[in-house]
Amino acid sequence: MKRTTNLIIGTIAVCVAALMIFAASRADQLEAPTYVKQIPSGYRDWRWISVAHEEGDLHSFAAVLGNDIATEAYRAGKLPFPDGAIIAALHYRHTASEENNKIFGREQSFIAGAPTNIQFMVKDSKKYAATGGWGFAHFNNDGKAADEKFMESCFPCHQQMKARDLVFTKYAP
Amino acid sequence: MKRTTNLIIGTIAVCVAALMIFAASRADQLEAPTYVKQIPSGYRDWRWISVAHEEGDLHSFAAVLGNDIATEAYRAGKLPFPDGAIIAALHYRHTASEENNKIFGREQSFIAGAPTNIQFMVKDSKKYAATGGWGFAHFNNDGKAADEKFMESCFPCHQQMKARDLVFTKYAP
Repeated sequence: MKRTTNLIIGTIAVCVAALMIFAASRADQLEAPTYVKQIPSGYRDWRWISVAHEEGDLHSFAAVLGNDIATEAYRAGKLPFPDGAIIAALHYRHTASEENNKIFGREQSFIAGAPTNIQFMVKDSKKYAATGGWGFAHFNNDGKAADEKFMESCFPCHQQMKARDLVFTKYAP
Repeated sequence: MKRTTNLIIGTIAVCVAALMIFAASRADQLEAPTYVKQIPSGYRDWRWISVAHEEGDLHSFAAVLGNDIATEAYRAGKLPFPDGAIIAALHYRHTASEENNKIFGREQSFIAGAPTNIQFMVKDSKKYAATGGWGFAHFNNDGKAADEKFMESCFPCHQQMKARDLVFTKYAP
């Protein structure tokens, strides 16, 4: 009898452990967002996708670059972006150029000022399933990744651009 | 006597012709500006140098790209740019993005609108000696090159940027 009881308890324990592992794995996949912690190599040589300029509190200039997979998908109008696509947004201060204005004879010219941060979207539909298949990254000018609290704001905002697979930037011809 | 006169006249004629050819060749090299009439191939795949935004009468966004020779010279801080360097400025309307503003909840976002023109600077110190070693090009959105009168304005303006070999755009890190 005692042996049977032990067997039942043992079986239950194994089942509970298995369920806990399964639940943790599901949570990993579907709930806990994973962020990109390393700067993708070679991004400064990637091809140019488009530019952006944000005012409000930002006063920022962006150049958006794509690795080969992202650039080809953009050019082919292929959505969703395939796994392996990486999009980089290089941000700078939106800065008046006194040097240019002097030559042009009027206040009209703005250039990329001090670099501020670089953001990436890395497509891996399995690894980043919890955030629409995209891993988000934000590196400050000192190369340090932003903290998790900051990163929590990426997905809810990008998620509103469902029609373009969460990507704001359109390809400039 | 008549034969001698003919010989002298003939010699003078040859000299005058030679002088005319020489003068024309000098004028070609030193005075008559030569403009670039063909769009350099593959420019859309070149590496990204920087961005620019012009207000005044332009309301334009520019992405500046460089071919390999130009990009390497930029990165090495090598001036003057070596022969073979080509710099492209792709221009677009500086356009408010209602789509982005709706998501961001404020009027802050500007993107590349309709393409307007593409300009090139092609370095060939011999061919373009009359314009500081740079051949200038301007192609409207329909692919047509601007007329010579329009092109006459390029060099006098760029010439004021002597400290950077006539190139306005600085490399964005």
